[in-house]
This record gives sequence, C-alpha cells and structure tokens, in this order.
Amino acid sequence: MKNYLENINKAFESKARLGIMSVLMVEDKVDFSTLKDTLQLTDGNLASHLRALEEAEYLRVEKQFVGRKPQTTYHATDAGRQAFKSHLDALEKLILSNRQGS
Amino acid sequence: MKNYLENINKAFESKARLGIMSVLMVEDKVDFSTLKDTLQLTDGNLASHLRALEEAEYLRVEKQFVGRKPQTTYHATDAGRQAFKSHLDALEKLILSNRQGS
Repeated sequence: MKNYLENINKAFESKARLGIMSVLMVEDKVDFSTLKDTLQLTDGNLASHLRALEEAEYLRVEKQFVGRKPQTTYHATDAGRQAFKSHLDALEKLILSNRQGS
Repeated sequence: MKNYLENINKAFESKARLGIMSVLMVEDKVDFSTLKDTLQLTDGNLASHLRALEEAEYLRVEKQFVGRKPQTTYHATDAGRQAFKSHLDALEKLILSNRQGS
C-alpha cells in the first residue's frame, strides 16, 4: 500500500487541481474564464491553484494581445503532463488495491 | 467532465485521507500507531484527518481497555465505505476520460 501512496503527488491533491490538469491535458491552451466556468471555481481560488501549478512548473502562462485585448492562456508543460500521468497511475493502483481488498 | 468532478468528494481529497480510508476499507479496525506507521504521518496531522473524517461520519472511534491499557481503534462506517467507493469511482472516470483525451 505504501508505494503507490508515495507516488500520489500532493501538487494534484485537490479536486480543483485534478480538474485544471485534466482540462490542460486535453486542450493545448485554455484561458482563465473557460477554466473558471468548466471547474466552477471563484477567481481567487482558481488563481491560487494556477499559481501553485506554475511554481511547480507543471503549467506555464502565456500573455498575448487578441486585437486590442490582452489575453492570458495556460498550457501544461511536458513535466506537468508526465507528473499528472504518474499521479493518475498511482490513483489507479490505489483504486485497484481497494477493490481487491489488499 | 463536470459530472465526475462533481462526484469527487472533498472529504477524501488529500493523500492522507485516501490512505486512511484505504486502510479502514481493508481492516475492520485499526489503531492510531498502525495508521501512523503505515501512512508515515505525524501525530497531529493524523489526528486532524481522523477528526475530520469522524465529523463527516465516515469513520467512528472506539475506546476500550486492553488489560490495563486504554486503546483507541478506528472503524469505517457504512456511510464512509459507500462514500469512499463513490469517490474512487469518480476518480476512475476522471482517469479514463484523461486517457481517452476527452
């Protein structure tokens, strides 16, 4: 039991972080309001999760102008993709061992 | 994506909570030091997670004497078992949808 618990990554512990990474794994880039609507989070809550994932270098932020309007988009980094995959693998092992009752 | 995120239960969000419930799903009763060693948590950290799970009525606490020594054991409640199973199911759906890239 201990080993797959060890592979569970605290950076992805919360429901919000699972949601953010799931969206970023599928979409190449996502803007703030799309994330906010999809995950039904407050601005402050989403911003703090994004900052933490950026500090962990699991996502990166791009700022550009669309016409005259500034736009911020979020992208999973390769490290983020790899770490999230490993996290999901560890969760899957936890689920399987629970089902086998071991 | 939203629906299985909704079924992810915040009470089981942390690695420690996942570990505690996994142990309680397998063992009918577990004492504090066994949980502490298995999950490699500090006394204070484990105690606060156990209290939160107890308040959510996902586990219950029994106190008895073993010889002259008081012993505290922890047991998953039926509600706890059911809620944890649903949580694992929701995590599994999240994993599958990530794998299918949807």
